[in-house]
Amino acid sequence: MFTEADHQYMSQALQQAALGAWQTSPNPSVGCVLVKAGVVIGQGHTLAAGQDHAEIQALKDCHARGLSAQGATAYVTLEPCSHFGRTPPCADRLVEAGVVRVVAALGDPNPQVSGRGLARLRSAGVVTQVGLLADAARHHHRGFLSRMERGRPWLRVKLAASLDGKTALWNGASQWITGEAARQDVHRLRAGACAMLTGIGTVLADDPRLTARIDQVSRQPARVVVDSQLRTPPSAKLLDGGQAFIIHASTDVKRMADLQDAGASLQALPTSTGRVDLNALLTWMGQQGWNEVLVEAGPALSGALIQAGLVDELVLYLAPMLLGHQAHGLVDWPPLSSLTERVDLTWVDQRMIGADLRLIAQLRP
Amino acid sequence: MFTEADHQYMSQALQQAALGAWQTSPNPSVGCVLVKAGVVIGQGHTLAAGQDHAEIQALKDCHARGLSAQGATAYVTLEPCSHFGRTPPCADRLVEAGVVRVVAALGDPNPQVSGRGLARLRSAGVVTQVGLLADAARHHHRGFLSRMERGRPWLRVKLAASLDGKTALWNGASQWITGEAARQDVHRLRAGACAMLTGIGTVLADDPRLTARIDQVSRQPARVVVDSQLRTPPSAKLLDGGQAFIIHASTDVKRMADLQDAGASLQALPTSTGRVDLNALLTWMGQQGWNEVLVEAGPALSGALIQAGLVDELVLYLAPMLLGHQAHGLVDWPPLSSLTERVDLTWVDQRMIGADLRLIAQLRP
Repeated sequence: MFTEADHQYMSQALQQAALGAWQTSPNPSVGCVLVKAGVVIGQGHTLAAGQDHAEIQALKDCHARGLSAQGATAYVTLEPCSHFGRTPPCADRLVEAGVVRVVAALGDPNPQVSGRGLARLRSAGVVTQVGLLADAARHHHRGFLSRMERGRPWLRVKLAASLDGKTALWNGASQWITGEAARQDVHRLRAGACAMLTGIGTVLADDPRLTARIDQVSRQPARVVVDSQLRTPPSAKLLDGGQAFIIHASTDVKRMADLQDAGASLQALPTSTGRVDLNALLTWMGQQGWNEVLVEAGPALSGALIQAGLVDELVLYLAPMLLGHQAHGLVDWPPLSSLTERVDLTWVDQRMIGADLRLIAQLRP
Repeated sequence: MFTEADHQYMSQALQQAALGAWQTSPNPSVGCVLVKAGVVIGQGHTLAAGQDHAEIQALKDCHARGLSAQGATAYVTLEPCSHFGRTPPCADRLVEAGVVRVVAALGDPNPQVSGRGLARLRSAGVVTQVGLLADAARHHHRGFLSRMERGRPWLRVKLAASLDGKTALWNGASQWITGEAARQDVHRLRAGACAMLTGIGTVLADDPRLTARIDQVSRQPARVVVDSQLRTPPSAKLLDGGQAFIIHASTDVKRMADLQDAGASLQALPTSTGRVDLNALLTWMGQQGWNEVLVEAGPALSGALIQAGLVDELVLYLAPMLLGHQAHGLVDWPPLSSLTERVDLTWVDQRMIGADLRLIAQLRP
């Protein structure tokens, strides 16, 4: 059904898509490549929300080269939109430009699009094909797909430990377990996240900023604290710079006022037992338009999210040292009564990051 | 000093040496390659103790090909011996055969040899050179060198855990954490060890055989239990098949008699507080002629050996699962009061073994 050349062009479209990955949310970061007579005549990726989608960028690139898209094939990582959002429908623009064939890696799971973009193209006589490099596209668009299909963000938990799985003390000593290269790598993970999620224990112990401190960042992730009793100090560093949310189960209006004065947005999501409802939290994060969320928290929150089945991927940095069993572990759970209660993982990647070993594993659904 | 060809021949000698690795102890597993006019005319490796050394095997290989070693160069991974042990001195045999140059990767740390083999060669007019591929040879001969230089075996600790560093319950459930491929890999480690070392906790919980159950094994490792109070049941499986040692701190003559009747050899190595003296244990294992020892024990004995600075290498199999912090850890230590008390490691290797990740790291001296 698809030729070797089709695969190459879609692969190029995925490379384009990767260029926009840190800036498009809540939109998906789509890539588009226009090809005519075996030559790439234009390419582009989605810009920040409200600006051009990938197809428009590719058409502009084509025109900037003094070329016409009349008779071209468009390779897109996701079905072109058919609705007026903050931008006009891309399907119409492809038709107007004279594109005669559209190959999409995936149909769009967005209920406002879902097949209508392709239908619109076909009704205008455009040949459409779907499913080329679909697995790679699903991986690239995992956050957007999670929000559309499951109503919640794709959740990644970052952990760092000694070789015997110990994160050391709560008092900040954990900052010294992994090396500088691993910490830089974490800043890259943060840059790719729409939001950071942490717990009040980490805020009180480490007072982290949870910002992405690398050069290439065009927007900082939002920061969210799970803090049922509103114990976050108004001086907490992560309240600086806006986009700071505290999710709580409190009715203390004085604390609410103090934290709002300090710049925090508050959201009550209580369970009946006065804790934060983690399922409701994930739904709420999806409603914020966040596609990917990175958790940097202690073993209590990380463990609770994993046990609730809300975590998609672990990124674990293992430092070459041993700390012994009295040190803090990676995940706090009640004792398992049987090995069948374990959480099974699927390996994704292992590699050295400086002096530390980085392991990535996905949780089996 | 050394040519590219010299490196190739020594590398070939190291490959020969690897062939004897599982059978020569207490002798080192040496490799020898004879070269004349750019052609390999003979090669060989040390056989089981009391049989031919590598040099003799290489000379026999040369003669079996109908060739003469007159004027040849011998590449050996360790200095040829100059003393009458269970076999006559190899240095003399090389001289008699007409070898004119001997290149050794390492001098022999054995006080009975130490430079005298090379001196004997030089006094017969043979050119000698030492130090080619010395690091690789030190790695290959690590067990023998450890016993000669430190008076104790090279100690490797095998551990298996979930990704969060948990070994599960004492009741044998740990056998199910890692997969079949990892367990086969452990049998290869056992086959390469002169002895297995475990603790009474593991004997009582798992009743292991600690044998190497793979086809290529010509001799089984000895088995040693650290059991201060002689709690090993006379029915314990590891007492089957001979070469079973129980190291204790007991004076209970009834238990001693029962265990000796069951085939165990007993050795008292008490500390003043009635435990087994681990430093004395390592010295005793060296006196048995054991070059490499593999530890498969629980977190108490593994942790104690590591904290005593007696462990050279960890082999850790990580299974793709999480078990939570209530499960058993890898090493039992008293709480560290400072991160400076940690044990630092140096990465050696990381690779997948079936579904598990195998990490090898050496302890920094």
